Amino acid sequence: MHGLSIQLSVDMKVMLIIGDGMADRPIKELGGLTPLEAAGAWNMDRLASMGVSGLFNALGPGVAPGSDVACLAILGYDPYKVYAGRGGFEAAGAGINMDDEDLAFRCNFATVNEDMIIIDERAGRIGEEAVKLAESLQNLQLRGCGDVEVVFRHTLGHKGAMVLKGCGLSPNVATPPPKAYGRADSFKPLDRTTETRKTVEVLREFLTATYNILKDHPINRARIVKGLPPANIVIPWGLGLKPKLSPMLDMFGTRGACVAAVSLIKGVCKLAGMSIIDVPGATGDLNTNIFAKAEAALKALENHEIVLVHVEAPDEASHDGDIHGKIKSIQKIDSMVRIILENISLDDVCVALMADHATSTRLRMHTADPAPISIASSELIPDGVSSYSERAAYRGGFGRLTGKDVMPILLNITGKSARFGA
Amino acid sequence: MHGLSIQLSVDMKVMLIIGDGMADRPIKELGGLTPLEAAGAWNMDRLASMGVSGLFNALGPGVAPGSDVACLAILGYDPYKVYAGRGGFEAAGAGINMDDEDLAFRCNFATVNEDMIIIDERAGRIGEEAVKLAESLQNLQLRGCGDVEVVFRHTLGHKGAMVLKGCGLSPNVATPPPKAYGRADSFKPLDRTTETRKTVEVLREFLTATYNILKDHPINRARIVKGLPPANIVIPWGLGLKPKLSPMLDMFGTRGACVAAVSLIKGVCKLAGMSIIDVPGATGDLNTNIFAKAEAALKALENHEIVLVHVEAPDEASHDGDIHGKIKSIQKIDSMVRIILENISLDDVCVALMADHATSTRLRMHTADPAPISIASSELIPDGVSSYSERAAYRGGFGRLTGKDVMPILLNITGKSARFGA
Repeated sequence: MHGLSIQLSVDMKVMLIIGDGMADRPIKELGGLTPLEAAGAWNMDRLASMGVSGLFNALGPGVAPGSDVACLAILGYDPYKVYAGRGGFEAAGAGINMDDEDLAFRCNFATVNEDMIIIDERAGRIGEEAVKLAESLQNLQLRGCGDVEVVFRHTLGHKGAMVLKGCGLSPNVATPPPKAYGRADSFKPLDRTTETRKTVEVLREFLTATYNILKDHPINRARIVKGLPPANIVIPWGLGLKPKLSPMLDMFGTRGACVAAVSLIKGVCKLAGMSIIDVPGATGDLNTNIFAKAEAALKALENHEIVLVHVEAPDEASHDGDIHGKIKSIQKIDSMVRIILENISLDDVCVALMADHATSTRLRMHTADPAPISIASSELIPDGVSSYSERAAYRGGFGRLTGKDVMPILLNITGKSARFGA
Repeated sequence: MHGLSIQLSVDMKVMLIIGDGMADRPIKELGGLTPLEAAGAWNMDRLASMGVSGLFNALGPGVAPGSDVACLAILGYDPYKVYAGRGGFEAAGAGINMDDEDLAFRCNFATVNEDMIIIDERAGRIGEEAVKLAESLQNLQLRGCGDVEVVFRHTLGHKGAMVLKGCGLSPNVATPPPKAYGRADSFKPLDRTTETRKTVEVLREFLTATYNILKDHPINRARIVKGLPPANIVIPWGLGLKPKLSPMLDMFGTRGACVAAVSLIKGVCKLAGMSIIDVPGATGDLNTNIFAKAEAALKALENHEIVLVHVEAPDEASHDGDIHGKIKSIQKIDSMVRIILENISLDDVCVALMADHATSTRLRMHTADPAPISIASSELIPDGVSSYSERAAYRGGFGRLTGKDVMPILLNITGKSARFGA
């Protein structure tokens, strides 16, 4: 070797920041800007201007992914192969162990009237009161279903997870998300087997049991007095089987950590073999403690090669049609980006910022619009894109990416790319 | 919910304008511009500047598609799975019903000499005179082929479709497109079975029968007097079986309508379950009544979610090596775009403009060059591309698209994207 010689670097690490549903469509009320453009998120812009941008569709153009599916795709899994319903990831995130024959569900604390019609599918987005309500649901015995064990856990706000353990259950039951003014017991058998019939019965019995326990619970009596909707039922939905993922360490030789509030993402990451870092004050909504999450993520970098920080708030605001809430949540994530950029060097840490998918605030649903991704590292040649937005990313150096591209790109930047050939 | 909240929209509809073979290569005679660039089609440019552009290859880079295959791909089908020859689509477009064992053909009225050598494969692009000639071919009886029924229909200009109905026929016959100075009876058996031999005989007998009827037809005598090539034979080519497509309504929950002159495209759309709107004055050539087609398409939007308007003229001009004809046909499509943009709102209708493939005016054939596509809708973030052309689309926000992307992208814009995951 002669001339200018360069030292081999230590291994670079990855900080991957995911703003759930952060991408959007142009909004008339914002003069045709998207919430990302209107947020004035200049730390995000700084990140983009130091790095390379692109547009991301977890599953390719035209397919709107759920957040679980998008997270699986980002972590390098093929969702079409490994996804077996939402419930399994929720259960894993809630810390419930599953056996192969178990059925898992996401659950909502909700408000029903006496005819089991849903009045509020989130019981007024009930907060920490749900913890106490959940305590009253431990060791639930279902009438006439003695051989089925029920494990219920509250996770966050109005959310919970439930696993049915027992023989003779069937996954062939449609369990749609609860919707206001629909029926709480809208489970539909998808075949005529005894197992499927039994599973529907068990689910109905679960509804009845939670209603009987919750309807006169002191917390609900107090809520009614305050004019708040009582959380008088727990509705299971999103049936899933136990997911089977190869651990990230086996796939990429990489140890990962996850900082997330919502159990769905915690579940995906846990099943991917990542460490789950619980952060007090991470609430999944606009009040989430961004600073605590940033700090936890930075600390996790010490003994993990990749740290995923997930912020749920932009998606929640989008589903509520709340433009200003979405903009505020983006500004909070911008602060998180600032803290992270202030505390690392791009020589040592590759920082990626992305939305897992777009959520249209106008349509109040996930869309298949591409979401911007920007990755900054001293190992990357900046592409001249100077802001982090859907529009700016049209000109990004990555072009269009799908789920299967993200991990390989990150691994390559950090000097761990797969190799093929001599 | 608080702050600025947004209303759910009504379902957006789709107007999809396809200029057949409209894309091209740089042409020396145009100073290196393409016909699209030389046409000064500023309504197309306006559409592009309000929307997002990209480059489209129906089957991916490097494969030149036929218009039938490109249309199938655009409508969301995998041509490699569903395509079984051109004839079946021509027959469907001509309104001939097929059974599974039938064979279908595209037909050309052509001019042959006494040795069955083709002098003009389109009989001087004969026009409506072909209608009368076709009348003389009804209830055609083939000598020695009594068990085979022949259904022949004239479609447009020199074009027709024919279906052979009967037992013991075989699709294993090569039926190449007729070419000047080739033989009319250039059918080639692809195996040695009795069925294949019989099919070749039936086709030869069809040639002879049409020649015998047409050669002294008064219309042809008159054409000869006028110095025009007589349409003295009908040459079947493009053998196809009955195509089997899942209806668009089942695939996407979408009702479609098709406004097209040529039976090939009508056939593809009809078999896709779309309504076929017949427009008087739609001729498939430069004289086609663009205004009538635009009006019919706008009307069809009232009770269909997606309306496909197809204009054949640019492809015809390209195959004739007629640069100025191609430019004129593009200018007519530009007028159509103007009428459409004047009569819809991009809040309610997503307007897509594309070429199904490139046709090189110089090579007089379809090429695999990517064709520009621009889609405008108030739900899309404009990508800064300000003209509709092959060159401008290099910078388009969609990047490179293939057939499988188009319907998912259109459905997503209109709020009907497929969803996978929670």
